[in-house]
Amino acid sequence: MARKTSLSGFPEWLPEERLVELHVLDVLRESFELHGFSSIETRAVETVGQLLRKGEIDKEVYVVSRLQEDEDTAPAERGDDQLALHFDLTVPFARYVVENGGHLAFPFRRYQIQKVWRGERPQEGRAREFTQADIDVVGDGALPFRYDVELALVMIDALSRLPIPPFVLRVNNRKLAEGFYQGIGLQDTAGVLRNIDKLEKIGPERVAQALCDEVGATPEQAQAALQLAAIRTEDTSFVEQVRALGVNTQLLEEGLGELAEVVGEASRRAPGTVVADLSIARGLDYYTGTVYETVLVGHEQLGSVCSGGRYESLASTGKKTYPGVGLSVGVTRLVTRMLSQGMAAPSRKVPTAVLISLVDEESWSPAQDVAQQLRERGIACEVSASAAKFGKQIKYAERRGIPYVWFTVRGEDGSLAHEVKDIRSGEQVSADPASWSPPAEDLRPVVRAAGS
Amino acid sequence: MARKTSLSGFPEWLPEERLVELHVLDVLRESFELHGFSSIETRAVETVGQLLRKGEIDKEVYVVSRLQEDEDTAPAERGDDQLALHFDLTVPFARYVVENGGHLAFPFRRYQIQKVWRGERPQEGRAREFTQADIDVVGDGALPFRYDVELALVMIDALSRLPIPPFVLRVNNRKLAEGFYQGIGLQDTAGVLRNIDKLEKIGPERVAQALCDEVGATPEQAQAALQLAAIRTEDTSFVEQVRALGVNTQLLEEGLGELAEVVGEASRRAPGTVVADLSIARGLDYYTGTVYETVLVGHEQLGSVCSGGRYESLASTGKKTYPGVGLSVGVTRLVTRMLSQGMAAPSRKVPTAVLISLVDEESWSPAQDVAQQLRERGIACEVSASAAKFGKQIKYAERRGIPYVWFTVRGEDGSLAHEVKDIRSGEQVSADPASWSPPAEDLRPVVRAAGS
Repeated sequence: MARKTSLSGFPEWLPEERLVELHVLDVLRESFELHGFSSIETRAVETVGQLLRKGEIDKEVYVVSRLQEDEDTAPAERGDDQLALHFDLTVPFARYVVENGGHLAFPFRRYQIQKVWRGERPQEGRAREFTQADIDVVGDGALPFRYDVELALVMIDALSRLPIPPFVLRVNNRKLAEGFYQGIGLQDTAGVLRNIDKLEKIGPERVAQALCDEVGATPEQAQAALQLAAIRTEDTSFVEQVRALGVNTQLLEEGLGELAEVVGEASRRAPGTVVADLSIARGLDYYTGTVYETVLVGHEQLGSVCSGGRYESLASTGKKTYPGVGLSVGVTRLVTRMLSQGMAAPSRKVPTAVLISLVDEESWSPAQDVAQQLRERGIACEVSASAAKFGKQIKYAERRGIPYVWFTVRGEDGSLAHEVKDIRSGEQVSADPASWSPPAEDLRPVVRAAGS
Repeated sequence: MARKTSLSGFPEWLPEERLVELHVLDVLRESFELHGFSSIETRAVETVGQLLRKGEIDKEVYVVSRLQEDEDTAPAERGDDQLALHFDLTVPFARYVVENGGHLAFPFRRYQIQKVWRGERPQEGRAREFTQADIDVVGDGALPFRYDVELALVMIDALSRLPIPPFVLRVNNRKLAEGFYQGIGLQDTAGVLRNIDKLEKIGPERVAQALCDEVGATPEQAQAALQLAAIRTEDTSFVEQVRALGVNTQLLEEGLGELAEVVGEASRRAPGTVVADLSIARGLDYYTGTVYETVLVGHEQLGSVCSGGRYESLASTGKKTYPGVGLSVGVTRLVTRMLSQGMAAPSRKVPTAVLISLVDEESWSPAQDVAQQLRERGIACEVSASAAKFGKQIKYAERRGIPYVWFTVRGEDGSLAHEVKDIRSGEQVSADPASWSPPAEDLRPVVRAAGS
């Protein structure tokens, strides 16, 4: 990881690093499928109009145009209809649902693992090209709140299967926050949230000042908002703490009930992995209820590695609305940290378990027969490209971390004798290409947490 | 597939279609790994200078720029350093090898499965965004010819595992063609190849005319070039047919020997799947020896679904050269045809094998316990979101193609009784969440060839 890529913000992995990323992707896919989520992908581009419908991120979007287009493009194509690379998978998914609504069974559960692009200033944790792994459930017209609870459980299950440090899912609820702000007389709830979102970055004093300056809060109102944001519990005791602040609105009550359901169920099933954190705001405008983010314990400065929330009207045709709830794993952010901290490593660098060596140049084709027999039983192998000295062929395997080398020798009577050598132990035994298998742990490279 | 996507040239699949694509991708990955290829990915963007270093495709490239960039971008960034989406995976791979040469073990075997983009006019078989699955082997300074044979065998193995019609790998060799053209006195061999490449599209008469008009061939030379291009054999008998044309150069002999090695070995191992086709030219300028393309029998008009070749100097630092040989599967082209012709279909639309039903609203959390027990044994399941009538919950499963519904009923003595119903047969049996499993064929959606 001392290695620098040639284009800042566009990470590329070496094969052994890619094995760690692949492991993360495979585990997430497997987990999502075990929970009944279907895979889809959306195209990499959306119209600028679609992308900017929600949120204020126009500076971060990469637009695309054909190289020769400049001269012959009508001005219209440079407006809302211009194509740009998607910056997340939620907005494209909403468009996909609206377009394909008639072909989907609702509530529709999908996972989506793809690259996204943002023109941000690169730093660890913030790349310009990165992979996200999303799950969402959307309903046709309505979606039971219970899915907000379920999605938290799915992600806790998925993340628990990864070779990463303990994590904490921080949950809040926009209804709770907005109901509270309204209850203390602050009407610009979006403005309050936007400032509360900066709490971790700039601290309570400057947030209080900004609330007074920008949202027109009195010092008392600002203090009340900060008191709410300071509440943090690993169980549902946050409900009492909020009530003790003496504010009462219907929206606040609704939010309290919802958040208690998520935190109650998740903390009962996975104690210590969930926190009701009333400072969580999440930047995106489209969230309307539950909001989630996830930090790795000891790596809080990295930012959230898995975030999301409930949205009521992101996907909408005018006539129809598809409310949804979703969570997104920042795969690249997570993998970058896993690699830079050596959290996990593959048992070897290549898929190959066995190198079939050559005794002479004519034995290449029979060696392919041996390889084919092994592959039929799921054993990954390669055949040497030339009949160099055995020592050199063994070196080739060693350099790659291939654990076994296969030898085929023609006896004086013309019969073939096969032997296989474990080049780590030096042990060499007779073997039948039709039945020999390596021990299960040598079959494929296995990614394990460091120290395990 | 009557469904039209909203942006022409950017295909998007429904979940059941995506299962077919995922199956193709999984089979290719598994095959490539069994042959010892390591996974890598490269970033989606390259500099325009890098992309246009070889070949004449500048009209097809999509450049990217930040939305707000226009005003504040230095003119330099709009030249060779401008970023553009890659149009294949070979050019980015060559750049990756040069940049990471010191960290790789050579010969380096990699596979790479990613989206690529071309600004082409969309039609079936030609999308603007599509997925390619590439394998390449590159050497440090030199690469034994034997890899040209091996890569053909790897692809024949990989494609044979897919639920597609029989295919034919058509192979030719640029040395053979160029040696022959030189032998008959045509020096602009690239010009001849470019015209021979149009043979299937415009026919021999017009190619002969173009050879005379554009490459300065005499009618006799044009006829000789066409005679060579007409040779097509399923074994190495093409060698005799070429020799019968009475041309003799060292380069031609070298090409004949190489092509005979590829076709000899491949036809011996997989009779009927390989053809020496001396009309194959492949457009790309960087090929220097073996060239491959692959057609589905009965779908020749679709064009090649798997192409590639040998390149001596695509990856080069000036001091160092990394010659390579590779093949690329046009996954999107293949899958689009598989779907439009109904060549393969999944056994069900969703990963879910079991729907855990709810007897009342309070049973959601215990139902999650049952689900967790099943998932621990790899059984994909979902829990009903509400305790609707059982008939309605069964309908939910039916609509999605979920084969089993699980019922948990609390007996009068407080004990829990579990039953599971196969909703296709109606059979309902007692089941223990700690041990019940569906038959293996119901565990996951399985993609099968139509009629199998």
